[in-house]
Amino acid sequence: MASQDEQDPRIAKISSAIRVIPNFPKPGIMFQDITTLLLDTKAFRDTIDLFVERYRGKDISVVAGVEARGFIFGPPIALAIGAKFVPMRKPNKLPGEVISEEYSLEYGTDKMEMHVGAVQAGERALIIDDLIATGGTLVAAIRLLERVGVHVVECACVIELPELKGRERLGDKPLFVLVSST
Amino acid sequence: MASQDEQDPRIAKISSAIRVIPNFPKPGIMFQDITTLLLDTKAFRDTIDLFVERYRGKDISVVAGVEARGFIFGPPIALAIGAKFVPMRKPNKLPGEVISEEYSLEYGTDKMEMHVGAVQAGERALIIDDLIATGGTLVAAIRLLERVGVHVVECACVIELPELKGRERLGDKPLFVLVSST
Repeated sequence: MASQDEQDPRIAKISSAIRVIPNFPKPGIMFQDITTLLLDTKAFRDTIDLFVERYRGKDISVVAGVEARGFIFGPPIALAIGAKFVPMRKPNKLPGEVISEEYSLEYGTDKMEMHVGAVQAGERALIIDDLIATGGTLVAAIRLLERVGVHVVECACVIELPELKGRERLGDKPLFVLVSST
Repeated sequence: MASQDEQDPRIAKISSAIRVIPNFPKPGIMFQDITTLLLDTKAFRDTIDLFVERYRGKDISVVAGVEARGFIFGPPIALAIGAKFVPMRKPNKLPGEVISEEYSLEYGTDKMEMHVGAVQAGERALIIDDLIATGGTLVAAIRLLERVGVHVVECACVIELPELKGRERLGDKPLFVLVSST
């Protein structure tokens, strides 16, 4: 939450552009809806700029985005810092040879896949998603990259739900977020 | 296929960065895989630039992207032309109030949803997807926008499969593509 300590004036506007929808996808969940952020051209621009300012010049050659909302934030960052964009997808979506990682959901498990050959051992990667809750999907993304010898520099999300302690599951892997939602 | 007639030198490199995977998702399909384009930082940058050069200054305030690969190409274009990004999603993914349109698949139907309030009557929109095959999803996206009074200026795709005649299903709605795959 470094960025909040620094109190960048753009953060408050990004935070207020995110809509909260109660009881989605089920009763008791306060869903953080980033689609309203995408409608605010200034706040969306600022969101991308804040990430680009942090990661430019850090020798990152891979931006990995988690399906589906990580696909929205990842490519503009990748283009700005001159990195390639690598989609991390749900099973049976990527057409080439893949490696996969299981991760746990509230009930049962799901899988995340990455194309073999998309990244090379020794590359430095940033992982992007819109939100970190329990951290399960980010852990799966980290494992996919580390299995093929890529160094994960950091995970970056627009929103963190700190009560769910996803940050702890990432271990020593740094997490950067713009907005912390309580 | 205007851009091909003009023979922009960037097009050939974009075309060669797209990988073809035979027999995915089933026998007989030659799948056009844009993930290899995303790994070529120059070709991906050129792809976005070609769209931005076409749509900048055209008074477009909405870029609508079709899940999931339209989420990759739409946001960088929206940011560059100062438009908002509106995701067109599969059912039960958008948390707010939605309108929906059915469209036909090879077997059965699927639905596409858009948030109510994401766009306003009178706005001018561009619809983005990676590929046009039979055109069913683009037709659904056009209908969603037109139902709420938005003018669809054009549909834009990286790849067209002209044999499937999707262009004809769009009626009088213009279609712009970078690469035509035979």
